[in-house]
Amino acid sequence: MTTTQFTFEIHARQGRARAGEFHTPHGTILTPVFAPVGTQASVKAVTPAQLFEIGTSLVLANTYHLYLRPGDELISEMDGLHRFMSWPGPILTDSGGFQVFSLADSRIVDENGVTFKSHIDGSIHEFTPEKSIEIQENLGADIIMAFDECSEPYDWEYNERAMNRTHAWAERCLLAKRRADQALFGIVQGGIHLDLRAKSANFLSGLGFPGYAIGGLSVGETKQEMHAVLDLVDMNLPENKPRYLMGVGTIGDLINGIARGIDLFDCVLPTRLARHNAALTKSGERLNLANASFTQDPRPIDESCECYTCSNFSRAYIRHLVIAKEMLSATLLSIHNLSILINLTIEIRQAILEDRFQDFLMQSGLGDLPAYKLSTEEI
Amino acid sequence: MTTTQFTFEIHARQGRARAGEFHTPHGTILTPVFAPVGTQASVKAVTPAQLFEIGTSLVLANTYHLYLRPGDELISEMDGLHRFMSWPGPILTDSGGFQVFSLADSRIVDENGVTFKSHIDGSIHEFTPEKSIEIQENLGADIIMAFDECSEPYDWEYNERAMNRTHAWAERCLLAKRRADQALFGIVQGGIHLDLRAKSANFLSGLGFPGYAIGGLSVGETKQEMHAVLDLVDMNLPENKPRYLMGVGTIGDLINGIARGIDLFDCVLPTRLARHNAALTKSGERLNLANASFTQDPRPIDESCECYTCSNFSRAYIRHLVIAKEMLSATLLSIHNLSILINLTIEIRQAILEDRFQDFLMQSGLGDLPAYKLSTEEI
Repeated sequence: MTTTQFTFEIHARQGRARAGEFHTPHGTILTPVFAPVGTQASVKAVTPAQLFEIGTSLVLANTYHLYLRPGDELISEMDGLHRFMSWPGPILTDSGGFQVFSLADSRIVDENGVTFKSHIDGSIHEFTPEKSIEIQENLGADIIMAFDECSEPYDWEYNERAMNRTHAWAERCLLAKRRADQALFGIVQGGIHLDLRAKSANFLSGLGFPGYAIGGLSVGETKQEMHAVLDLVDMNLPENKPRYLMGVGTIGDLINGIARGIDLFDCVLPTRLARHNAALTKSGERLNLANASFTQDPRPIDESCECYTCSNFSRAYIRHLVIAKEMLSATLLSIHNLSILINLTIEIRQAILEDRFQDFLMQSGLGDLPAYKLSTEEI
Repeated sequence: MTTTQFTFEIHARQGRARAGEFHTPHGTILTPVFAPVGTQASVKAVTPAQLFEIGTSLVLANTYHLYLRPGDELISEMDGLHRFMSWPGPILTDSGGFQVFSLADSRIVDENGVTFKSHIDGSIHEFTPEKSIEIQENLGADIIMAFDECSEPYDWEYNERAMNRTHAWAERCLLAKRRADQALFGIVQGGIHLDLRAKSANFLSGLGFPGYAIGGLSVGETKQEMHAVLDLVDMNLPENKPRYLMGVGTIGDLINGIARGIDLFDCVLPTRLARHNAALTKSGERLNLANASFTQDPRPIDESCECYTCSNFSRAYIRHLVIAKEMLSATLLSIHNLSILINLTIEIRQAILEDRFQDFLMQSGLGDLPAYKLSTEEI
């Protein structure tokens, strides 16, 4: 596997938190970073120009959705995802694993892969590790994911089986991969079970990926369970490679993830909340802009936010858009919510560089201090 | 009536077409101009920043809609429409006349005004000339409209009654108007009847408005009938005041309107078409982006268009957004369609300044040459 176009430099550490730079063929990602999700090659209700203005550096797209529609071969013919969606910066695609496992009753898993029914037209398809890599090579993202089995987090025996399958599939993905301009990340699984998570992190580390994802979290477990897994995995992955916590995106989760050595995050939450009239604030509140209490409120959503939305529009105006069912509300709220998370990672990066992340963590009131001393032996 | 803040200068004429500048308290409008419509204080799916980038100088908003929701008094408390919708440039509001007359069975007209049922909650309201001015003063647009009766275009007797009522109401609007930072335009009515149109234009001219609107067109009459009315009205309005053709916005209508002395246009068409997946081209075609023929089409909507959409996205991508029901399609198509009409007016202005509008008209293939010699006496 050639990954010479990908290098990761850590500029500062504080506790387990790191401030780094991940170089990709489409630009440098300053870490920690939050990636907006463009499931169908579009971050819903936001243009690439607006994403850029917000400070976005990395965008995620979903392999499952794009394979079904418009098709990865079409996107390849259109010169790949960057050109197709007009996002010239770094892109990450997931493997399709999480999406097909979410189909619940419409899929069958065996050692070879997963057979599933399309949510669009009910047609039958199969994803294997090789197929997932083929699709992701057609899409052409900078960062691609190994095909994994994402299980429910509690059943130990199911999680062990899924983990072993994920490991075997990771090896097959490495063998299948051909493009040198894509970095393939392995995905650590194991549910909430620390013994499985340690085993998974160590096994994948041995395969020498240029980066590691942590899957199967934020799927129903408690925050304490999530944090224990992150503490443990952190200890068992190579320090000099980027770590990506998949599908996680509340303010508290970002702060606590970064405190545990996570560099990359993605989540549909900020744009999904926006389409449901909810605005995030820096302090972690959620405002429902449909609420009558905002009818005459001349203030911006968050007076300390400098995004386009907060610089130009009142809560009263956004509430009017919501009540009048104007599409602009989704755009303005998406810009704001994404700005909150992206600016949070930018502020935290600066705090780590200036050796004051611990203070930031305490002041935020959202930090659950990581168990720095925990190691595999202590489990 | 004080309108010292409004001046209209004509820099060049070719035939009846004029290139001018209309100065308002919120900036100068270069004419001819096309105004995007922000019915509910939002041009659907487009931000003010995007409107600015497109080259928008004037935005229209609807008195009827804003009176009902969120209410003109609320907008007044929020420092007026410019601040509320964050559009710092010139704004025009209609009088509510056209909107309430569109309610058909839900309104009663008498000499005093119109009683109508809200389309939102069925509540009963009355618009009078005085009420329309009060609402428009609360909204605070730069250009406001006299309250008028917009009738069907053919019945002569009905049109005469409606015209006389419109004239009486125009006088009441002038008396009711208090703000010096708003220019009140009179509205010429009379259906397709040239005798009524001439009478209306002459009557309103006598009242000395700072600008004149032509209402009741593009409501079912033929193009020939519309053009005959425009030729006639043009002859009977003062030359040195701006003329506004209400609710008209196809490429052909703009070209033919400008050829007949029109300076201002507005229409919901470009943004409404966008939400129905249709794109305009410079040559006057309409492309349906849902069409399967665009599936693998790497070209922009219009290769000669330089808008954000055409500079960055293929027909294949926009078709994908349409089929995948991504909101971004409405934004990208609205930006494009508005750009086509706004750039058309900019190009025509330049052609008039350079004395080549006649060539433009012939080359477009859309021009129906105006009857320059027609005058009131010849009817």
